[in-house]
Amino acid sequence: MLNLKGLYPPLPTSFDDHEELNLTAIRENIEHLCKYDLSGILVLGSNGELVMLSKEEKRKVYEIARQSIPQDKLMIAGTGAQSNRETTDLTQIAADSGADAVLVLSPSYYKGQMNSEALVKFYHDIAEQSAVPVIIYNMPANSGIDMDADTILTAAEHENIIGLKDSGGNLIKMAAIINNSKPGFQVLAGSASFLLPALSIGAVGGILALANIAPGLCLDIYKSFMKGDLEMARNYQLQAVELNTAVTRRWGVPALKAAMDHLGLYGGPVRKPLLPVNDEVKKELVPIINKTLKP
Amino acid sequence: MLNLKGLYPPLPTSFDDHEELNLTAIRENIEHLCKYDLSGILVLGSNGELVMLSKEEKRKVYEIARQSIPQDKLMIAGTGAQSNRETTDLTQIAADSGADAVLVLSPSYYKGQMNSEALVKFYHDIAEQSAVPVIIYNMPANSGIDMDADTILTAAEHENIIGLKDSGGNLIKMAAIINNSKPGFQVLAGSASFLLPALSIGAVGGILALANIAPGLCLDIYKSFMKGDLEMARNYQLQAVELNTAVTRRWGVPALKAAMDHLGLYGGPVRKPLLPVNDEVKKELVPIINKTLKP
Amino acid sequence: MLNLKGLYPPLPTSFDDHEELNLTAIRENIEHLCKYDLSGILVLGSNGELVMLSKEEKRKVYEIARQSIPQDKLMIAGTGAQSNRETTDLTQIAADSGADAVLVLSPSYYKGQMNSEALVKFYHDIAEQSAVPVIIYNMPANSGIDMDADTILTAAEHENIIGLKDSGGNLIKMAAIINNSKPGFQVLAGSASFLLPALSIGAVGGILALANIAPGLCLDIYKSFMKGDLEMARNYQLQAVELNTAVTRRWGVPALKAAMDHLGLYGGPVRKPLLPVNDEVKKELVPIINKTLKP
Amino acid sequence: MLNLKGLYPPLPTSFDDHEELNLTAIRENIEHLCKYDLSGILVLGSNGELVMLSKEEKRKVYEIARQSIPQDKLMIAGTGAQSNRETTDLTQIAADSGADAVLVLSPSYYKGQMNSEALVKFYHDIAEQSAVPVIIYNMPANSGIDMDADTILTAAEHENIIGLKDSGGNLIKMAAIINNSKPGFQVLAGSASFLLPALSIGAVGGILALANIAPGLCLDIYKSFMKGDLEMARNYQLQAVELNTAVTRRWGVPALKAAMDHLGLYGGPVRKPLLPVNDEVKKELVPIINKTLKP
Repeated sequence: MLNLKGLYPPLPTSFDDHEELNLTAIRENIEHLCKYDLSGILVLGSNGELVMLSKEEKRKVYEIARQSIPQDKLMIAGTGAQSNRETTDLTQIAADSGADAVLVLSPSYYKGQMNSEALVKFYHDIAEQSAVPVIIYNMPANSGIDMDADTILTAAEHENIIGLKDSGGNLIKMAAIINNSKPGFQVLAGSASFLLPALSIGAVGGILALANIAPGLCLDIYKSFMKGDLEMARNYQLQAVELNTAVTRRWGVPALKAAMDHLGLYGGPVRKPLLPVNDEVKKELVPIINKTLKP
Repeated sequence: MLNLKGLYPPLPTSFDDHEELNLTAIRENIEHLCKYDLSGILVLGSNGELVMLSKEEKRKVYEIARQSIPQDKLMIAGTGAQSNRETTDLTQIAADSGADAVLVLSPSYYKGQMNSEALVKFYHDIAEQSAVPVIIYNMPANSGIDMDADTILTAAEHENIIGLKDSGGNLIKMAAIINNSKPGFQVLAGSASFLLPALSIGAVGGILALANIAPGLCLDIYKSFMKGDLEMARNYQLQAVELNTAVTRRWGVPALKAAMDHLGLYGGPVRKPLLPVNDEVKKELVPIINKTLKP
Repeated sequence: MLNLKGLYPPLPTSFDDHEELNLTAIRENIEHLCKYDLSGILVLGSNGELVMLSKEEKRKVYEIARQSIPQDKLMIAGTGAQSNRETTDLTQIAADSGADAVLVLSPSYYKGQMNSEALVKFYHDIAEQSAVPVIIYNMPANSGIDMDADTILTAAEHENIIGLKDSGGNLIKMAAIINNSKPGFQVLAGSASFLLPALSIGAVGGILALANIAPGLCLDIYKSFMKGDLEMARNYQLQAVELNTAVTRRWGVPALKAAMDHLGLYGGPVRKPLLPVNDEVKKELVPIINKTLKP
Repeated sequence: MLNLKGLYPPLPTSFDDHEELNLTAIRENIEHLCKYDLSGILVLGSNGELVMLSKEEKRKVYEIARQSIPQDKLMIAGTGAQSNRETTDLTQIAADSGADAVLVLSPSYYKGQMNSEALVKFYHDIAEQSAVPVIIYNMPANSGIDMDADTILTAAEHENIIGLKDSGGNLIKMAAIINNSKPGFQVLAGSASFLLPALSIGAVGGILALANIAPGLCLDIYKSFMKGDLEMARNYQLQAVELNTAVTRRWGVPALKAAMDHLGLYGGPVRKPLLPVNDEVKKELVPIINKTLKP
């Protein structure tokens, strides 16, 4: 089974001033991040504005990503869409592009019909047809659907489903899943804000927006925990919470991109209807970034 | 200003057994519905599985719809997508196909960022570029976003925004919008379940899933109300609630398609991850349909 | 069966500057309201700060109310509490004081356990032991529990349960209840904001906070509807929505009391933790009141 | 500042078959629990059916508790009510009875008015008048109010407020509070389900329903963590989750009492409207208890 241990940044998708893909910026951001001891890169997750891109644009992002990510690091590709057919298409394109695994967001538009049976069948159908391992992606804040432990555990019975990224932050559910899932099933924290609590109950790592701008701090939490220095881990974790709340929870992708710009990476514009952070937000944001990251 | 008065069925999109578009069935369903005194047809609303279709498929649906809808009835086209650019593209395709107006669902994936400012800018941007009038579509049960009265009222200030379809069923909000919107702004009930209450406070009509299978009953509510026979209107309304709850609220698009099949129209398959209603649901559904519609 | 037809103000409970009961003010407010063509008075509903009073204080309010309400108008007494024993005690005190009916809020603290079975048993137990008819009170915004139609319908099967006050504003549920309840079961709108829509589907009247400060306007809606003048009813309804939203929905009991003070009635202090409306709110509130009520 | 470190069971309140207080059972349960290395006992928390008791009954429970809890263990008394005056009264009764600290639930009935300002003023008012230290109690699942970090931090500025019991399980919020609160402010996990994650970010202990029936297991988690054996702590934590979910989250106080009966303690009846667990639930519950606790 593919080993998912460790940390991954969910890369924002870089656009130019006309909101067109900026593949050069994507490559440079990946090259920068791959200097750190991260386990790989996720492209086209929520922070990658997955719902904003056409299929052809997604293909281009998968391809530049694989070219830019060293072979000893994993490329995880977000391929979830509202229909099975679109999700399967994207999964094949990602696999053909060299993705090591795909991260599949639950479909969510028909919330009333997305009961456990429908979601399990969806994941089994995608997993059955995917050439690469599948990671379930539970993202209630965006999708409006919070899959319960039983649904995830039943979906996870398929041999091609190897893990879960949970961004909901419900540690009780996460513990229930870790406790009852098949041997080798791997849970990844979906936010730096609860990385240490998740590790404490058995998560193997995390896909963390914060790792785009503070890979060092995120790795400090992870490595302190791994070597048993809980007090150090706690100190780093508490530092991470405030920064992460500002950058990702409160102001979202626009703030993450603004933070990247502030730190000398390429953040660039977001696609509308997302709006860039305004000056007032920037004035609040910059001191929080500087306080923790002293650029 | 385009007059939206009256009732519209939000047409389900017909698929064949391979989940491919069945344009013949779409045409025949439209022709059947246009025999009734409905004011027009909505294609690619929530009941039209709008999130399941590719752009090319949407174009085909717009085109067959316009060919099938008589010129004296309105064609309203659902064109909402997660990004401004995709929504504007679809809006142009719909207008080029001959749509009289477009119904634009609010983008919803980045819920945390979809504040009033972002939503108003979104609607103004779409309206600015649209060749046909725009109707705002508030659909909290699916989108997970329930736009408030102030947001809708501010969006509605654009001269190319002529109305609102509200599926949330909050009559207080609806009344506030009717009371405070620009002259001529038209509110349409988004469900037969609250058609009469909505008419009582000034809605001009409705886009009603139930009108696909019970256009007569829906028109009975509307016409009784219009001629001031409230008791009759109430009787029809109470009949409509139970049927509508079963067909659309409880079991969604799969139940609507099953009901169409049961009534001799073309319902056909849904696209996965939606699942067809199972036999148990059918056993509950059919008596409810027969009781009200005696086919 | 007791006839509940018509409108009722849910009287605020008057306190003096030490937060002690002001029985004189209660009496005078009731006497003022009973000059209008209201069907009666509710004491100790949500607007009566029911959860703030001791049992002994509640007894005093029931007694002064009965002394002040003419015999040809109904006294409805709020008696809901978290336990069956407390609710039954209060119901007996109210009945002994001369209440014509009791309004019983659903218990709500143990939300996870308040399933349909528990709620139905609660209402049947209370109804069984009550000397006067029982009205179910569904108040999701405060209790955090929104009873569904089936629960209410099953509870309503008890012969001593004669009606429902629904403050949730879900017209679809209200219609389902009206459509399926036993003959003679009476539904009252719980807010002026949806009085006309509720009447349009068969509600028999309402218990309306707004009727404390605008009994005339509320009666205008009701009477216009009753004589079939829907357009007039709609005009009054739309006037009522803005005022009611400000006074009751947005700023709650403190605003209602401030409005009463402004209009020459006794509003007086609220009990803490409720806070009086501050000057800023008052500045927004007064023009809204004056605009509609021109005192 | 009073040291809250360690674990506390929130004692259920024992009733006899007529739902009257069973003080003997309360005493015996406390004596049993005090044989364990727990730091004290909470009486009249949510598991103590706090909302079901009269003031006089509460006084009796406080008194028997203090008589039964050894002086070297803390007695924490739940004293929250809907009004400041009732909360302050109960706080004084508890202090007079010998409570070491009080746990004060947020008032919640007027949810719309319980903004940050109202809640902070409430806690400051209670703390100002309390003769013993105050612990804030955030219990969103029951109260329907989930106080945010800023509200709790501002309330905590009062010198007589020494800690927080958080039952919401939002570890991100808990981390933000720990990171930003005054020196010495103590956070207690409100559920065994997230004890270890909470300890990992700096909680000092917990008030855990599970500690009523599995004090040993709860202490195993705590002590393993305190001596740095994280793997052992994680194993115990994962055992605790399933049992705790069944006993407290899923079936609530009735299940906790049934579990106590099953384990030879006095559980006894709940007060209505709570219903005893039925046979079907018991059949599911007993194996879960036996599996973990092998009685």
